[in-house]
Amino acid sequence: MRLNEQVVQLAPPDDARLRFIGRIRTPWPDRAACPRQGSPDGPECRLELDPCWHAALAGLAAYPAIEVLYWLDRSRRDLVVQCPASDGRGFGTFALRSPVRPNPIGTALVRLVGIAGGVVTVRGLDCVDGTPLLDLKPDRALFTPKAPPKAAP
Amino acid sequence: MRLNEQVVQLAPPDDARLRFIGRIRTPWPDRAACPRQGSPDGPECRLELDPCWHAALAGLAAYPAIEVLYWLDRSRRDLVVQCPASDGRGFGTFALRSPVRPNPIGTALVRLVGIAGGVVTVRGLDCVDGTPLLDLKPDRALFTPKAPPKAAP
Repeated sequence: MRLNEQVVQLAPPDDARLRFIGRIRTPWPDRAACPRQGSPDGPECRLELDPCWHAALAGLAAYPAIEVLYWLDRSRRDLVVQCPASDGRGFGTFALRSPVRPNPIGTALVRLVGIAGGVVTVRGLDCVDGTPLLDLKPDRALFTPKAPPKAAP
Repeated sequence: MRLNEQVVQLAPPDDARLRFIGRIRTPWPDRAACPRQGSPDGPECRLELDPCWHAALAGLAAYPAIEVLYWLDRSRRDLVVQCPASDGRGFGTFALRSPVRPNPIGTALVRLVGIAGGVVTVRGLDCVDGTPLLDLKPDRALFTPKAPPKAAP
């Protein structure tokens, strides 16, 4: 254990269960090769959706920026305080965007390049090739709910 | 089924498992009462963390805006195309920010009001009272990785 790390010991998690909807293809074979943060000018990456979800992409092409959620399947989940810079400084897990967290869900805001045949091509990711895909949705800053507004309470 | 909805039938999901880290307290007892989108001027809401995670908040108070992930535990997960306005127009699930999605994870960008005793008070949420909390992290626009930059490949 690194100096100033703090670990929690808990039973295996099972409060809810996820379904992977596809895989993310990136140029980076492992975590060491990944950039620390994605860039809108980064390389093209592919979100390859399982066929049963292809129809769920209808309408997404209207959004130049989309939010992507993915599962960081190689991450430890038991660190409460961690030392990302290996210099002895400890940070609370929730004060970091490290992949090491109790629910290792990555969120990225990416530029949409194109959608074809159930594959969404984007720029701005920083995850390992083969990362499981959980969700994609329009950037909140661009999205307007389709249902009419509710009356004020 | 509403006109133009499209459903997928799949085995129960179990590709990965989540651990709830606390609960969200909001003024809204059910989905009908919730606003359609959170507002930075909305009411104060409380993120109540389980005690084992309190130390993971160290350092978070430095960020005026934080990202919150939560589990929309009352949502259907089988709609590929849905009709949010009930007017017959169908939208692909991934072209919406509806809670109805294969992995019903809500993401919100909220204003931090304060942190005390394992409770994070924020403005900007729109979820039901009691919603399970999954994660919180600094707003990506404000965060700089703590480890030194990597060399360009």
